[in-house]
Amino acid sequence: MAGENALNINEIRNAARRNAGHVRRTPLLASPFLDEIAGRRVFVKPECLQHTGSFKYRGAHNAIASLTPLQREMGVIAFSSGNHAQGIALAARQNETPSTIIMPADAPKLKIANTRALGAKVVLYDRATEDRDEIGARLAKEQDLTLIKPFDNEAVIAGQGTIGLELANQAREEGISSAQVLVPCGGGGLTSGVALALEHEAPDITVRPVEPEGFDDVTRSLASGRIEKNTQLSGSICDAILTPSPGQMTFPIISRLCGAGIVVPDKDCLRAMAQAFTRLKLVIEPGGAIALAAALFHPQMIDGDAVIVVASGGNVDAPLFADALTHFA
Amino acid sequence: MAGENALNINEIRNAARRNAGHVRRTPLLASPFLDEIAGRRVFVKPECLQHTGSFKYRGAHNAIASLTPLQREMGVIAFSSGNHAQGIALAARQNETPSTIIMPADAPKLKIANTRALGAKVVLYDRATEDRDEIGARLAKEQDLTLIKPFDNEAVIAGQGTIGLELANQAREEGISSAQVLVPCGGGGLTSGVALALEHEAPDITVRPVEPEGFDDVTRSLASGRIEKNTQLSGSICDAILTPSPGQMTFPIISRLCGAGIVVPDKDCLRAMAQAFTRLKLVIEPGGAIALAAALFHPQMIDGDAVIVVASGGNVDAPLFADALTHFA
Repeated sequence: MAGENALNINEIRNAARRNAGHVRRTPLLASPFLDEIAGRRVFVKPECLQHTGSFKYRGAHNAIASLTPLQREMGVIAFSSGNHAQGIALAARQNETPSTIIMPADAPKLKIANTRALGAKVVLYDRATEDRDEIGARLAKEQDLTLIKPFDNEAVIAGQGTIGLELANQAREEGISSAQVLVPCGGGGLTSGVALALEHEAPDITVRPVEPEGFDDVTRSLASGRIEKNTQLSGSICDAILTPSPGQMTFPIISRLCGAGIVVPDKDCLRAMAQAFTRLKLVIEPGGAIALAAALFHPQMIDGDAVIVVASGGNVDAPLFADALTHFA
Repeated sequence: MAGENALNINEIRNAARRNAGHVRRTPLLASPFLDEIAGRRVFVKPECLQHTGSFKYRGAHNAIASLTPLQREMGVIAFSSGNHAQGIALAARQNETPSTIIMPADAPKLKIANTRALGAKVVLYDRATEDRDEIGARLAKEQDLTLIKPFDNEAVIAGQGTIGLELANQAREEGISSAQVLVPCGGGGLTSGVALALEHEAPDITVRPVEPEGFDDVTRSLASGRIEKNTQLSGSICDAILTPSPGQMTFPIISRLCGAGIVVPDKDCLRAMAQAFTRLKLVIEPGGAIALAAALFHPQMIDGDAVIVVASGGNVDAPLFADALTHFA
């Protein structure tokens, strides 16, 4: 519980100050057509509109802005399937910090290309046979780089938590005092950060993690009370949230603050992407659409007259998006 | 010039007050990848994220909120290829006002379906053989309905002008004091409203109308100094902005305040839609993407270090959007 004790609302408020003028305050969107499908009011926080196309830039920027000048000069290293990668690459470039990113060779092409284009050195690895933690630790040591983990890092969690600060204000503006917030959940950085922020700013708004079928480690961990692992490492289109297990730092926070997990099949993510296209004019990637999918197609899992959904990213390759439209729009 | 004399910045400020709490304040988005293509900083005002998926809701809401209680009770009528239709339908429903919308039978299916779903009575007509003005005038007289024209209406222009108020503030926040704003232009309601607002709020930001090839009536009218007409009424994918000529009320304003028009081929709109998908995570319809197309693919037509683009709507049918991705993303 060390992580949780050290990480508190002040860290999230500090992150909001560090990120001011860099991170985009995303709006809160809605459509009467989505309300009708869900049977309740649905509000969508489109983090696909964030710089680099996902919320990950929030944590990345806060983490790099928190480093010492020497650490920034030596450079940072990160591993990521793509969204943390792009967030780190852009934040590093803005802080004149060299960045090295370890990415799975089967990550979406767009994510790999963007990470390179943002100035990062990209090292590809094989998800099935190589260990990214080992590669990361070795390169960090050899080159004196600071490792910025994608979720088990206090500055990263605090940065993602700034979404919770914005949501608390936006919910108030919409007249919502009590609701559930559905959050796409991989390692739990976004989920735990938002939950910590809302605990203080809007205690009647409860976070519910949402996961793909076959990758429901957080849902099972919440049920059993200890960290559970997924048996598989790939096999879902939700590439952004296929993490083996919740983090050592994130799980105690999630366990203390969140409601039960919700598990959604891949097909519903494609259907949600099509609805976001038609009704919100947003491009959302499969893993980013999973919370909207839960709100629209699994309403019986949710309580309350209103539900808030985080659409966590939009970095999807065009052929998959066109497929979702062809089948479901 | 009666229209221009009567319509001033106070009407736009009043519109902003009437629309507060209803109209969404859209953000100002950007991407380093778009800056690179354009060779200058590009800022995008995504009115596709506005309620009903286009800026038209702003003018529609202001026009209906400006009616007398008796006019609201009797109902309103409008003609529109789809975006004004949806704006009127939603604003009418919110004001408990019956609405009748005259739409061309070849309008995008999505626009017709949404207009009906928002509670309007839809009357379809044949663009080639029937006269929508005549149909509108007859129904208005028979049923005592108030006609809300799509652009030659002061309350509508004032409502669209609220975008200019927001843009002036957002440009200041970005440190932009001087720039050109590219605006997709049909009848000129959006163009004239934004130009009027900026004249007072940011006089060094100049509006440039953008039109599809073959439908460059405003560009030619600006060049000749009098209202010119298009020879064709259909034949571009930019369905939202295929108006025969600039309005009697809008042209004097455009003529006094705007820079030269820019003409863009349809293919560049598809390319801009693909870029908005990849870089901004936005769904933009062809006519709504035409200003972005000018910024990205016709940079020699524009002056300055920064350009602001209005992405005016996102109501595009899925097959056309998938096509744009297949060919250009």
